[in-house]
Amino acid sequence: MTNNTTPATAPALVITPEALLQHWQGHRQLTRRVIAAFPENELFRFSLGGMRPFSEMAVEMMDLASAGIEGVVTGQWQPISDLDHAKEKQDGFTKEALLQRWDTVTAQIDARWPEIAPHRFQEVELAFGQYEGPLYSIMLYWVDNEVHHRGQGYVYLRALGIEPPPFWDRY
Amino acid sequence: MTNNTTPATAPALVITPEALLQHWQGHRQLTRRVIAAFPENELFRFSLGGMRPFSEMAVEMMDLASAGIEGVVTGQWQPISDLDHAKEKQDGFTKEALLQRWDTVTAQIDARWPEIAPHRFQEVELAFGQYEGPLYSIMLYWVDNEVHHRGQGYVYLRALGIEPPPFWDRY
Repeated sequence: MTNNTTPATAPALVITPEALLQHWQGHRQLTRRVIAAFPENELFRFSLGGMRPFSEMAVEMMDLASAGIEGVVTGQWQPISDLDHAKEKQDGFTKEALLQRWDTVTAQIDARWPEIAPHRFQEVELAFGQYEGPLYSIMLYWVDNEVHHRGQGYVYLRALGIEPPPFWDRY
Repeated sequence: MTNNTTPATAPALVITPEALLQHWQGHRQLTRRVIAAFPENELFRFSLGGMRPFSEMAVEMMDLASAGIEGVVTGQWQPISDLDHAKEKQDGFTKEALLQRWDTVTAQIDARWPEIAPHRFQEVELAFGQYEGPLYSIMLYWVDNEVHHRGQGYVYLRALGIEPPPFWDRY
């Protein structure tokens, strides 16, 4: 917990909890725009290199975010195998339904965030019964996972001849 | 700088400077593996959807990282237009040369990091003469930019029939 520049008793303030929330929700707003940029059929069916369609990546992001914020607040983690990414693949799941669920998770994160006790960020847990680490790194991991797969969605959109939303626009 | 859970005088410790360094360098190690996974020709030539070859994305990441760490330490920022992403496109630039330059930047970041004054992370500057924000957000931005483009490199590799390195392996 110490380094060359910072006494252990007063670590440098790198990022505040509210800035981390803004960082995460900013990325989620951009991802929402990427989902919305796909035509209905291509969202659920288009792929390159044998990869998943973007809808499945987006559902994974939502499931991790929704179960993840509950885990961070409560310390209770659903096993990763219980996050049923497949259930939304049922007939009748649409882009509109996916976007509505996205917005529900956005509101859930905003509502739960203030309940995260300040010491939680450095606490080590076995997130989703599988990933052990301090919670700040678990949270950065799922933001990274979203950025990673969203970048893949950009390639899908470009290959479809669709201009993706600008990467820097997170508001 | 205040929020609902943390008094302004003692903000929650979300991430330490050394953890941010580890986060960044962990991503850079994974990106190095993605560069190395490309065959020589495809690294410089393969593209999908009219996008840049992965070599150009990798050079951009290196230029931002190298000029960026200097900016964070010194407060002196090269204009973005001076970062000559094109100069490496000269004849004779190879995958081996790119990886060597990558390693040079890795060492530069490790050497300069302890010189970042603790108050710098929250200081607002016009990075690269163009992007205004607190330095922690500028730094997260260039990590995000790397994760975003590396995700695109994963699609290139998959489309080439090459298994990319696992996303979770940052060590």
